[in-house]
Amino acid sequence: MTTKAPLRVAMVGYGFMGAAHSQGWRVAPRFFDLAATPEMTVLVGRDAERTSAAAENWGWAETSTDWRETIARDDIDIVDIVTPGDSHAEIAIAALEAGKHVLCEKPLANSVAEAEAMTAAAERAAERGVRSMVGFTYRRVPAATFARDLVAAGRIGTVRQVRAQYLQDWLSDAEAPMTWRLDKSLAGSGSLGDIGAHAIDLAQFITGNRLVSVSGVLETLVSERPLLADARGLSGTASDERGQVTVDDVALFTGRFDDGVLGSFEATRFATGRKNALRVEVSGSTGAIAFDLEDLNALQFFDGTADATTQGFTKILVTEPEHPYVAAWWPAGHMLGYEHGFSHQARDFVEAIAAGEQPRPSFADGLQVQRVLDAVEQSSGNGSAWTTV
Amino acid sequence: MTTKAPLRVAMVGYGFMGAAHSQGWRVAPRFFDLAATPEMTVLVGRDAERTSAAAENWGWAETSTDWRETIARDDIDIVDIVTPGDSHAEIAIAALEAGKHVLCEKPLANSVAEAEAMTAAAERAAERGVRSMVGFTYRRVPAATFARDLVAAGRIGTVRQVRAQYLQDWLSDAEAPMTWRLDKSLAGSGSLGDIGAHAIDLAQFITGNRLVSVSGVLETLVSERPLLADARGLSGTASDERGQVTVDDVALFTGRFDDGVLGSFEATRFATGRKNALRVEVSGSTGAIAFDLEDLNALQFFDGTADATTQGFTKILVTEPEHPYVAAWWPAGHMLGYEHGFSHQARDFVEAIAAGEQPRPSFADGLQVQRVLDAVEQSSGNGSAWTTV
Amino acid sequence: MTTKAPLRVAMVGYGFMGAAHSQGWRVAPRFFDLAATPEMTVLVGRDAERTSAAAENWGWAETSTDWRETIARDDIDIVDIVTPGDSHAEIAIAALEAGKHVLCEKPLANSVAEAEAMTAAAERAAERGVRSMVGFTYRRVPAATFARDLVAAGRIGTVRQVRAQYLQDWLSDAEAPMTWRLDKSLAGSGSLGDIGAHAIDLAQFITGNRLVSVSGVLETLVSERPLLADARGLSGTASDERGQVTVDDVALFTGRFDDGVLGSFEATRFATGRKNALRVEVSGSTGAIAFDLEDLNALQFFDGTADATTQGFTKILVTEPEHPYVAAWWPAGHMLGYEHGFSHQARDFVEAIAAGEQPRPSFADGLQVQRVLDAVEQSSGNGSAWTTV
Amino acid sequence: MTTKAPLRVAMVGYGFMGAAHSQGWRVAPRFFDLAATPEMTVLVGRDAERTSAAAENWGWAETSTDWRETIARDDIDIVDIVTPGDSHAEIAIAALEAGKHVLCEKPLANSVAEAEAMTAAAERAAERGVRSMVGFTYRRVPAATFARDLVAAGRIGTVRQVRAQYLQDWLSDAEAPMTWRLDKSLAGSGSLGDIGAHAIDLAQFITGNRLVSVSGVLETLVSERPLLADARGLSGTASDERGQVTVDDVALFTGRFDDGVLGSFEATRFATGRKNALRVEVSGSTGAIAFDLEDLNALQFFDGTADATTQGFTKILVTEPEHPYVAAWWPAGHMLGYEHGFSHQARDFVEAIAAGEQPRPSFADGLQVQRVLDAVEQSSGNGSAWTTV
Repeated sequence: MTTKAPLRVAMVGYGFMGAAHSQGWRVAPRFFDLAATPEMTVLVGRDAERTSAAAENWGWAETSTDWRETIARDDIDIVDIVTPGDSHAEIAIAALEAGKHVLCEKPLANSVAEAEAMTAAAERAAERGVRSMVGFTYRRVPAATFARDLVAAGRIGTVRQVRAQYLQDWLSDAEAPMTWRLDKSLAGSGSLGDIGAHAIDLAQFITGNRLVSVSGVLETLVSERPLLADARGLSGTASDERGQVTVDDVALFTGRFDDGVLGSFEATRFATGRKNALRVEVSGSTGAIAFDLEDLNALQFFDGTADATTQGFTKILVTEPEHPYVAAWWPAGHMLGYEHGFSHQARDFVEAIAAGEQPRPSFADGLQVQRVLDAVEQSSGNGSAWTTV
Repeated sequence: MTTKAPLRVAMVGYGFMGAAHSQGWRVAPRFFDLAATPEMTVLVGRDAERTSAAAENWGWAETSTDWRETIARDDIDIVDIVTPGDSHAEIAIAALEAGKHVLCEKPLANSVAEAEAMTAAAERAAERGVRSMVGFTYRRVPAATFARDLVAAGRIGTVRQVRAQYLQDWLSDAEAPMTWRLDKSLAGSGSLGDIGAHAIDLAQFITGNRLVSVSGVLETLVSERPLLADARGLSGTASDERGQVTVDDVALFTGRFDDGVLGSFEATRFATGRKNALRVEVSGSTGAIAFDLEDLNALQFFDGTADATTQGFTKILVTEPEHPYVAAWWPAGHMLGYEHGFSHQARDFVEAIAAGEQPRPSFADGLQVQRVLDAVEQSSGNGSAWTTV
Repeated sequence: MTTKAPLRVAMVGYGFMGAAHSQGWRVAPRFFDLAATPEMTVLVGRDAERTSAAAENWGWAETSTDWRETIARDDIDIVDIVTPGDSHAEIAIAALEAGKHVLCEKPLANSVAEAEAMTAAAERAAERGVRSMVGFTYRRVPAATFARDLVAAGRIGTVRQVRAQYLQDWLSDAEAPMTWRLDKSLAGSGSLGDIGAHAIDLAQFITGNRLVSVSGVLETLVSERPLLADARGLSGTASDERGQVTVDDVALFTGRFDDGVLGSFEATRFATGRKNALRVEVSGSTGAIAFDLEDLNALQFFDGTADATTQGFTKILVTEPEHPYVAAWWPAGHMLGYEHGFSHQARDFVEAIAAGEQPRPSFADGLQVQRVLDAVEQSSGNGSAWTTV
Repeated sequence: MTTKAPLRVAMVGYGFMGAAHSQGWRVAPRFFDLAATPEMTVLVGRDAERTSAAAENWGWAETSTDWRETIARDDIDIVDIVTPGDSHAEIAIAALEAGKHVLCEKPLANSVAEAEAMTAAAERAAERGVRSMVGFTYRRVPAATFARDLVAAGRIGTVRQVRAQYLQDWLSDAEAPMTWRLDKSLAGSGSLGDIGAHAIDLAQFITGNRLVSVSGVLETLVSERPLLADARGLSGTASDERGQVTVDDVALFTGRFDDGVLGSFEATRFATGRKNALRVEVSGSTGAIAFDLEDLNALQFFDGTADATTQGFTKILVTEPEHPYVAAWWPAGHMLGYEHGFSHQARDFVEAIAAGEQPRPSFADGLQVQRVLDAVEQSSGNGSAWTTV
């Protein structure tokens, strides 16, 4: 890696996503022969002490409590944004204007308006060779990427139907306390924006088509939960008071893609026993693929062109060197995990920057997902009427 | 069985369902110790020759080409209707008025109006001790019945969400020819009424709740198909002409149950690779069940009250003597098949008649499913607006 | 079926296998267009009352307590033997000599000597057109038959390895009482002969090869069990006494086939949680098949000639009309159960008789399995030394 | 991590295992709060250039071509040996005598004699507080560790039977060329030592019992393979010559554990379609566990103490914070991969050193596995006679 140009990264934010992104930046250059070498230069956070602890833990060389200052530094090449959605727009636009390549966690923003502003900034920046990407990492699970490849290669024929679900159960306990994720003023959206966004992106990615209209319903199953003892009732020990859940627990919608195909979508945090079941099934005229994130290394593939007696769903272990991303890792049959997607993301972003190409998913892609979320919410508020994205 | 009263059965119709019902009548008394003994007395069909061949094949003692004449016979106790839906109402009402117990295949009728008339007739008949039942046999797959038992016993807590799908793929080939099932004037409905009805019945049966409103969309994916060479273009060899498919290929809808719970439903004949996947998953506050007819002998059960480290979906082989219906058959671990449900149906109908009790699903149950189908169709025609059942 | 010759069957014995065979004789002619029609003429058993009850239950026209007398009847064509193994030889030889076609349950006999005598009788009888077959019905599960077809068609290349297991758990409870199956003087063998025999037959059937030498060990895990209260301690209520288990609970052996291939075999009644897991996996030079009786309608097939990225085990639902036996039953995707194998057996036996051909598995096939069992037992008694079959 | 003592690591070797160990050392301190901080100080290899490239790739600070010199350095605390087995003994013994803690890849050595010498050295070193461990990392897959925990806690009752397999298929192609792994003089053993050793260790680890005698057979299925073009015929392009495969392709054996329990074992590189299927099933008196490395994040658990109707194998996603190692990583339902075991190994070794305790598996554990391998080979050479370990 010696002679390669470094790409110095500043990451803003240090929650759960910060750990995952850090692992991506750390590990990617160890397994992939990258055109440039990302360096974990600055970790930025509001709380100096916690930022410092996280930086030491995750291996960032420096820390800062002022993202504006960091963005202004000449020696920073990439700004990686893993803060909550309400600060994405401000930071991303400023960074792009400062000429920094920007990787921004999903959802792109908490509103369509913000996402539009970000996309405009990204497009202006692109003219100057500044790149931007939104972090739908599940696209980069090898089995998901390979599903896209099979569909694109015509291995399932013409797409006919799509089923997409993201099933979790961490809110099943009605006495689980309030968190910021259940407060609309902070989180923007509930299951729809948090996990439904992944289902939408993955379905669109795999099929290569985009949702153009939706009909759906959002539902809050447990509307009051115990508040915690801090000022906002959102952290600390349990208290006797209860707070209102103001986001959706469940989102159900039907969507029509631009090729006319109908898809069914569900996002829920109440699917008891389902821990992280992001599932996409695409039925085509001559085959089908089915993916489930709880079986991350496998892809189910039905080949309707095989002889009639031996047709069936084939469980492909997507761990062969011929599969996307896999050759960089271990021998055939050795499993990858959740975090590998973040190394793939780091790799793809670095390679696009080095190649002077626009990486995907772009901010425009993120904006489009935001518009789908918005349309679902409108439809839900309007008796499930079909709503244009 | 010597001293038991016989129950003489006349079956009207001889299609695929005729074979299944015949097998039910034939086999049930060999494995269950019934309170009365069904006898396969008369097979009724329009075509004398084909009726005669079917009767010999399936073991019916006599044949008739006139169902009215057969219904008028004093020595007939049960009329079993397996004709297409457009003749259900006339035969069933006449039979009930003649004092015959009636088992009628699903869907109960081709319209709500017919189903209402049938239900009224059934209720009048019930006052005279005459019984009636509609043939949603999948309720009687042991795993499905056991799912209902677990839910009823509170083993999954309060029901929170329902997912129901009936996925088939026999229309995937766009060049597969027209059949009467694709002509609305004959079939009444497409995937919605044919297989969606099963998904609705099973979801309601397992949860014990009823759909009260729906929002949905029906879709025809392949609108023209090759006509066959006979007069109606619906049988015989291939021809050069094409006919219009006038029923739905796919039905997608969201429904609200009377306890407020939302469920998602799909019925399709285009789910490439899925042959007979009738699936119901019910998420409760403390557990979940998931059933798939393609894994007929198993029930997936998640017990959220188990200790945290050993929770997970348990694949229960529903083949133990303690499970519903199973003790009559084989030792533990020996699989049952599709047709066993018809023996269970025959058993339950005979036992209800002998006990003087109303069997379920009643005609009223069938009518309610018909109303759900009707509401889905209305909603689809009305921009997916929520429609009361 | 009117003009077809009848084949009148006398069945000797009325245990669990009697129910299964009765179902086979009853149902086969209803679904298959047989060349001759089996008739359930006489049920023979020692106890007049129980025989009579069973005959009525299962639909046999007459009963007898004297199998010799029944065999002497001119109007009996087939003798079906479902008694315990110790009486197989006497009845089968007498029946064959009386010119009756004989279907004999597995294992063919309790000793190699008996099996040899039976085979000699069968071969003499065959010269006179009298047919005989042994009841390894699991060959006739469509997925198992289809596995054989794939191997025979070269779809897995050259056979390289075989894994065969029959896992049950009904003896897991160390306090489960003694039964005749645990007494060597009555049962002849334990898990080896009872279920291991099926694993051997199925592995040989699917590969088309025969075991020629074995090295193995038999083990009794629970050597004493509560006796029951009857004279022999083998039925009735619990008692305070304990009896010796004198058969094997577990059999483990390695076998070499006549093509040089090694196979591993296990038969056990202590595989906790496994109810009826008869499994055979065959690894070939270009593919593999894997079957599990607990997933009776499916066959796993690995096609190593597919392109590298889409290889994997395909779960074939063996329910298509093109699959063995299936066209006679239900539409694609409709499951078959345990007892269907007995209809297939009845069909194949009747068709062979009508065609004047030798059905398989023949008594010679049954004798060969007996010799394998015998060799395993010898090897176990001789420090697992390799023993020629 | 600032105030923690560093533990400087020198790693000898840079093959596939070198990449995995490097990832372990790099990542472990980022996710686990370790008592001391491992530092990737020196990478040692014979070839200066390749060692240097690997060091840069994997992030080692320095390189050396002389392991003796490196061992002699005062500032090295840990020697991590990932060379082929024939050099393990020399390096490990020297390192231990130099007072370095030693982590040695499995198998411990290529012969029992070497392993004995290493174990003696380890025991002498332990008296001086110097630690040693052998790298059976599959123990540290959370599902495998948790299986051990369930067995140890009595959740399956008394162990009754063990089934262990390691199935791969990378030699299925008979024209795949020779490699050093197929030459006994270099590799020492074939499938038995390479992957069978893992099956043995895992079975012993989960049950807590040790094999005391074995009866088995080794087999070479393809005895000649194309040589490659380099001097030894083991690398480079294809040539026209063929070489002898001198190791086993398949190992089948039965073993008796010290508690009297029998286990069946298979190791193979010819199980077509099985990529990395290390499987262990343990049947106990009241339950069972089943693990498969191809489904790395799951453990199958059968609880025979549950009520009779809801028993079955529960698929536990071993991704909850209460499961071994998991809390350090991601939220529930987020999958881990192959390499996480190496972080767990690094963590456990560091923690044991810091705590002054003997880590497991010790060299004595590794020696015992070596003795089992040796006994299997002897038994195979002696007609599968039972051979004491």
